[in-house]
Amino acid sequence: MKLVRYGKPGQEKPGLIDAQGKLRDLSAVVKDVGPEQLSDAALAKLAKVNVDKLPLVRGKPRFGTPVAGTRKFIAIGLNYADHAAESGLPIPQEPVVFTKAISCIQGPNDPVMLPKGSKKTDWEVELGVVIGKRARYITQKEALSHVAGYVTINDVSEREFQIERGGTWDKGKGCDTFGPIGPWLVTRDEVPNPQKLSMWLDVNGQRMQTGNTKTMIFSVAKIVSYLSQFMTLEPGDIITTGTPPGVGMGIKKDGQPAPVYLKKGDVVTLGIEGLGEQRQDVVAFKL
Amino acid sequence: MKLVRYGKPGQEKPGLIDAQGKLRDLSAVVKDVGPEQLSDAALAKLAKVNVDKLPLVRGKPRFGTPVAGTRKFIAIGLNYADHAAESGLPIPQEPVVFTKAISCIQGPNDPVMLPKGSKKTDWEVELGVVIGKRARYITQKEALSHVAGYVTINDVSEREFQIERGGTWDKGKGCDTFGPIGPWLVTRDEVPNPQKLSMWLDVNGQRMQTGNTKTMIFSVAKIVSYLSQFMTLEPGDIITTGTPPGVGMGIKKDGQPAPVYLKKGDVVTLGIEGLGEQRQDVVAFKL
Repeated sequence: MKLVRYGKPGQEKPGLIDAQGKLRDLSAVVKDVGPEQLSDAALAKLAKVNVDKLPLVRGKPRFGTPVAGTRKFIAIGLNYADHAAESGLPIPQEPVVFTKAISCIQGPNDPVMLPKGSKKTDWEVELGVVIGKRARYITQKEALSHVAGYVTINDVSEREFQIERGGTWDKGKGCDTFGPIGPWLVTRDEVPNPQKLSMWLDVNGQRMQTGNTKTMIFSVAKIVSYLSQFMTLEPGDIITTGTPPGVGMGIKKDGQPAPVYLKKGDVVTLGIEGLGEQRQDVVAFKL
Repeated sequence: MKLVRYGKPGQEKPGLIDAQGKLRDLSAVVKDVGPEQLSDAALAKLAKVNVDKLPLVRGKPRFGTPVAGTRKFIAIGLNYADHAAESGLPIPQEPVVFTKAISCIQGPNDPVMLPKGSKKTDWEVELGVVIGKRARYITQKEALSHVAGYVTINDVSEREFQIERGGTWDKGKGCDTFGPIGPWLVTRDEVPNPQKLSMWLDVNGQRMQTGNTKTMIFSVAKIVSYLSQFMTLEPGDIITTGTPPGVGMGIKKDGQPAPVYLKKGDVVTLGIEGLGEQRQDVVAFKL
């Protein structure tokens, strides 16, 4: 299933994308798409709904994040072999873990605001994993059964805040609007192999990132199992699993660093195979 | 006011500690102590309640975290000048920011579980700041008006996970049970100067940490203002502001490092002037 949440910010209703790509209203069936709807049992029940009888939604409503009630938004850094090579960085021995503030979560097509004074706001297309079943100290073999589904994420990052302002990366990762998620939560039965998904990101129509989850250093199963050794993962928690080559910070010209960052008026589009596409206008910060 | 949440985990009721130190039931007045009860207006309304008419609670119920609905649990590292000196580390130029997973939050007297395989679980008494009013890009002068009140926190930390496992500190800071908070949320009107609070922590009755918020490098007002430049702080968010000297990792013998860590059976007690005391039994991890 492709589950969505649509409508104005804070007033999203649950919905489903049918086999024809049409949006249908799920609000007579479930209250929301959130922790309580993500268990295997709840999703199996939802899968039995007669989709053709669900009301079609007219027009083109906004999409919100497809998962309500996320409590943790955890991120993995430097998780693509080709990205590490491009950056000239060694391959991590263990997953690099940081946190995105959950206040940065937004819909997939909401504008990305440049933080005040930001000069180095960058993009990162990433496969997101949505936890469906509580996970602590689980094995790699068990891990995928704790996943409800997958989402497209732009792990927007301010490189100066992240790297040059002391301390850990979290400062440059959780700014407001830095977490576009969606449009769809694609349930795991529709993603038989999360390690074989192509992904891309364009800025103003120019291809910047091209990648495939097959070059991940640590697989989704490994990451979920690994994180569950450090903290309990709960239904609705989201893990964003690292980005392939092509971020703005890494751009070179004639072999020399020539980073490119987002500026007001830019348009970022991105997508992951089977998980849907996002489009963000880059705008100045508005209070 | 000293606000509390008491009762079994997940079933806590709101309460208040009266002038005689007795626990009274607030559940006829407010549904909970959470984001909706933390605004100046909501707290002013609560302050008008006739405390003597609130039902006394019998017995000695468990305390939960005094704030429900926390969405972000942000932490500041290396924020005491005497602790930095003790550690031989330079004074940070800017606040060091990291994140504690909110799944680690628990009541002030709930047992602390050693993560599986942990050899370096450590203690940190810290002043916690509870946000009452949304804050983004606020000045230092405005900052304290966005604070609902203060809490005692033990920023329990696994040093191997934090420092030796690659990546950022978050791995060693958010393990289950690593965030005892409370017992009380003391509203800011009762804490006229948050930079003049003494604090202490004992392990098995032996004094390990003694400090005072007056030696903080970055004040509470500075921290709240600073963080609000990187992310929106929301009602119920909690910031833990760093620890004074005396953590287990820093213990020396004859000038040489001789760290001491928590083991099964240890008892940690801690407190901050006016904010109440905590007591944790250290136990093995139980699923």
